[in-house]
Amino acid sequence: MWTYEKRLQYPVRILRPNPRLAKAIISQFGGPDGELSASMRYLSQRYSMPYNEVKGLLTDIGTEELAHMEIVCAIVHQLTKNLTPEQIKQQGFDDYYVDHTVGLWPTAAAGIPHNALTYASKGDAITDLTEDMAAEQKARTTYDNILRLTDDPDVADVIKFLRQREIVHHQRFGEGLRIVQDKLDSRNFYLTNPEFD
Amino acid sequence: MWTYEKRLQYPVRILRPNPRLAKAIISQFGGPDGELSASMRYLSQRYSMPYNEVKGLLTDIGTEELAHMEIVCAIVHQLTKNLTPEQIKQQGFDDYYVDHTVGLWPTAAAGIPHNALTYASKGDAITDLTEDMAAEQKARTTYDNILRLTDDPDVADVIKFLRQREIVHHQRFGEGLRIVQDKLDSRNFYLTNPEFD
Amino acid sequence: MWTYEKRLQYPVRILRPNPRLAKAIISQFGGPDGELSASMRYLSQRYSMPYNEVKGLLTDIGTEELAHMEIVCAIVHQLTKNLTPEQIKQQGFDDYYVDHTVGLWPTAAAGIPHNALTYASKGDAITDLTEDMAAEQKARTTYDNILRLTDDPDVADVIKFLRQREIVHHQRFGEGLRIVQDKLDSRNFYLTNPEFD
Amino acid sequence: MWTYEKRLQYPVRILRPNPRLAKAIISQFGGPDGELSASMRYLSQRYSMPYNEVKGLLTDIGTEELAHMEIVCAIVHQLTKNLTPEQIKQQGFDDYYVDHTVGLWPTAAAGIPHNALTYASKGDAITDLTEDMAAEQKARTTYDNILRLTDDPDVADVIKFLRQREIVHHQRFGEGLRIVQDKLDSRNFYLTNPEFD
Amino acid sequence: MWTYEKRLQYPVRILRPNPRLAKAIISQFGGPDGELSASMRYLSQRYSMPYNEVKGLLTDIGTEELAHMEIVCAIVHQLTKNLTPEQIKQQGFDDYYVDHTVGLWPTAAAGIPHNALTYASKGDAITDLTEDMAAEQKARTTYDNILRLTDDPDVADVIKFLRQREIVHHQRFGEGLRIVQDKLDSRNFYLTNPEFD
Amino acid sequence: MWTYEKRLQYPVRILRPNPRLAKAIISQFGGPDGELSASMRYLSQRYSMPYNEVKGLLTDIGTEELAHMEIVCAIVHQLTKNLTPEQIKQQGFDDYYVDHTVGLWPTAAAGIPHNALTYASKGDAITDLTEDMAAEQKARTTYDNILRLTDDPDVADVIKFLRQREIVHHQRFGEGLRIVQDKLDSRNFYLTNPEFD
Repeated sequence: MWTYEKRLQYPVRILRPNPRLAKAIISQFGGPDGELSASMRYLSQRYSMPYNEVKGLLTDIGTEELAHMEIVCAIVHQLTKNLTPEQIKQQGFDDYYVDHTVGLWPTAAAGIPHNALTYASKGDAITDLTEDMAAEQKARTTYDNILRLTDDPDVADVIKFLRQREIVHHQRFGEGLRIVQDKLDSRNFYLTNPEFD
Repeated sequence: MWTYEKRLQYPVRILRPNPRLAKAIISQFGGPDGELSASMRYLSQRYSMPYNEVKGLLTDIGTEELAHMEIVCAIVHQLTKNLTPEQIKQQGFDDYYVDHTVGLWPTAAAGIPHNALTYASKGDAITDLTEDMAAEQKARTTYDNILRLTDDPDVADVIKFLRQREIVHHQRFGEGLRIVQDKLDSRNFYLTNPEFD
Repeated sequence: MWTYEKRLQYPVRILRPNPRLAKAIISQFGGPDGELSASMRYLSQRYSMPYNEVKGLLTDIGTEELAHMEIVCAIVHQLTKNLTPEQIKQQGFDDYYVDHTVGLWPTAAAGIPHNALTYASKGDAITDLTEDMAAEQKARTTYDNILRLTDDPDVADVIKFLRQREIVHHQRFGEGLRIVQDKLDSRNFYLTNPEFD
Repeated sequence: MWTYEKRLQYPVRILRPNPRLAKAIISQFGGPDGELSASMRYLSQRYSMPYNEVKGLLTDIGTEELAHMEIVCAIVHQLTKNLTPEQIKQQGFDDYYVDHTVGLWPTAAAGIPHNALTYASKGDAITDLTEDMAAEQKARTTYDNILRLTDDPDVADVIKFLRQREIVHHQRFGEGLRIVQDKLDSRNFYLTNPEFD
Repeated sequence: MWTYEKRLQYPVRILRPNPRLAKAIISQFGGPDGELSASMRYLSQRYSMPYNEVKGLLTDIGTEELAHMEIVCAIVHQLTKNLTPEQIKQQGFDDYYVDHTVGLWPTAAAGIPHNALTYASKGDAITDLTEDMAAEQKARTTYDNILRLTDDPDVADVIKFLRQREIVHHQRFGEGLRIVQDKLDSRNFYLTNPEFD
Repeated sequence: MWTYEKRLQYPVRILRPNPRLAKAIISQFGGPDGELSASMRYLSQRYSMPYNEVKGLLTDIGTEELAHMEIVCAIVHQLTKNLTPEQIKQQGFDDYYVDHTVGLWPTAAAGIPHNALTYASKGDAITDLTEDMAAEQKARTTYDNILRLTDDPDVADVIKFLRQREIVHHQRFGEGLRIVQDKLDSRNFYLTNPEFD
């Protein structure tokens, strides 16, 4: 179970509204490689993970991604405060606004509702960790793209923090994969699935 | 942000495997009225909620639903341990097994991947709380149905706990709605949206 | 069964094309809280509703929502008449136009195809009516948002009519819920499900 | 707008519960070629149809498909009455039951929620009518398949009525296509789109 | 099995970037009536097609649609080369860019991920061919719409080629349907399904 | 473009019908880690891949996955030949059969229609290749699961061939990733994106 602590893992203080940028960044809330997908990928995978230290890693990073999800939501929320209907229309925010006002809802930038098809939990230790390493690279790429679209330093500062964490997670999942491989038969990682066989 | 505490909110100790029942119960992980939808509904809505006490309520219940999600996953995990391929086929678990082995992945019983379309975050305090009251009734009904399908008292005991919490949440959202209505113009709750106007 | 009467429940006469506004309003055709979802929610729920007067209410309102769906389609159709390719591109209508020309197709403003996940039919009288009360609030909020985006009085006039009907439906479903609660055990509404037990 | 008449277009009186068969037949409510898709396909297409007699045809058949949807729902409802939990489990109805009890909800037999991607409204008279002719054949095939799965004559009788109507509709859309082709340039049906050019 | 030949079926040489137009054209990659849907529709249907000459037709056209898919991808790729972040934002390409940079991914213009619900494979020879004739008309209409949005002759030239092929395919499927009808009972095409009965 | 060669990459000769097993195996046609997703993942990614030898690798493996898709379809087709309605019902094939007879259509075992959300094309060479390595592990796991469900040696023989190819592809994508890393700045692979910067 989780306890909520009333602070963000990294502070968010954005002064200039920018709904267009908010629409891009919301992809890291509900989009294919966003923080909600990341968190649920790791928190789901841990049940079948056969080694406790890797299970702990999945819980730790899955919990941190919840905190990142909260940071992304805070960015989007601050970028969409105090808008006029004119700003909403001029910046193409109307197709989000009509169904959610300025409430948060997990969607990709292209309008795709958050969907569990964007992540896998395969019940195989090697496979799940390889999936996780790919997931962190995909998230890192999305943050790269957001940085290229951002000219507000207050936003860029937070995005850089989030991007850096994805690189750290990628490395930690690589270490987890090494642990799993060491525990399995060294000549054929795929011979048996300790979660099932 | 959240801190993980390594215990379940309510203990789960199931001794008899039952993949067929697991397939029904997994709906409360990833299904339309499951705990993941519940948690993300409330944690998303809080950004635009204009009143701090109700915002706190959304955070509290959203965080508790994460704990419920973990309980549901633990039930499904324990119901699907140590299965033989024959048991998997006889109980119709093969269509889940083929893509996830016995890993957890958020889906409805009918095979629908978890999807954000199952919940709303409308950026309107009255609407969001009415949505939340309905959500708790829908979850309560699903737990009612699970109880009718369950003859394992170890499972039923946990499901009854979860069902009871939904009724409590329903009441608390009702109180939240009363708070919001008291703060708005008493003759026309819908005249203005304090989150936007 | 239904008989078609060749007139709209409320007249629609819009003179100025506005494809951008049409894209927002089409959400009330195929979007999460639109008239098609509303109609199918109520017309589906009536089969398991155990009380005839509430079943009649569901049929009546479900039928009226079909008429509202037709009004919304008429608005979108009139807003997209006689467009030039230049207008289509300048107003961001091209992503709809390319796949549907100016034909009507039920989608949310954000491009999400109409999906039954946006409504529930739970086979439980109390739950279904609570869902319906929430649905009417969600539709009311969407009309509020459309009104803020609209500066054409011919459009606003019709939207105000539709919005007002949602408030009336909300009240009628509240009365339906009262009827159901009176018929069930007054101390525990959730003890039995007359549709199943 | 539509007026509801409290009778089915064709009577449904089924005495033997059969939830397994209900799960197959529900595809003609919410599945890819079901009556809801059919109705919304035709009722959507009529807005851009340039010729009044064909527009009338779309309205007529679209309205009749609503009546067929009601018939399909009545079949499913009667096939799932008075079930015991044991019957539900033995016949594999539990994955539907858990989320909907015995309420009706538009889904395909395979569990896919009703989705507008299953039909097209292209804003082109020839294309829409060709789509409609294909749609009727697809529905006819599904009824053929249901008949092969049915050994209850009370069910088969209604399905045969519905199947026969699809064949009639196929022919009427063929006549509609002929009307459209006669009105367009006889040497090149695709030269201009009277709905747009 | 297939052998790749390193050339396009029709040359694509586009000099002016135009991400807005790319977003419309990508619908013919992953959209409802795009080349991927077309190819998979025909390549899927051939397994149950009872007549070898028609099976060969499905394989031939299904294979050609793969080549068309490649052409559409080449158009989109060339239209999105060497963009600056400013161009991306000004032309509304940011909601695609954030999740895919300028990589290709099969989506509709409106942001809907490629989905098999957009095509049918019904296991009935007459039905499948009628579906295919409709599919070609739908693709033809989409190309018509793209042409109206295009003022770059290098793009229009390729789109005209693709559009013309759809008309040819429509005719060939019409011939296939005639072959099937001739082989079935001439008085009632729908009496038996040679694939199953 | 592709040329079709009328033979399977690996022969399929299955004598005993087994629709239940067919429902599991069809996941490798249209499911989350199936051959269609694999093929479209690689064929999409090649457009933005900056290095020709890796682009060639993507084309080669993407083309081979089309051949694997064809093999999987052949298995499913042969496993579902000459079924009686009784066999269809007893083995739980009715929910597929009702909408597709015994035609092939790309779906996951759990009923989820093929969806592009199951794969990524991110326009970043390192990320795409990491995604591809994960994809091959996921497909390998699914084949492992199919093998555990299979007691027909004619089926197992083909599945083992397909499984082995995934392992080879995993290795080849690993080599591709090494090539890309060697071409990028050796101290920071993520500093620039040669496809965009």
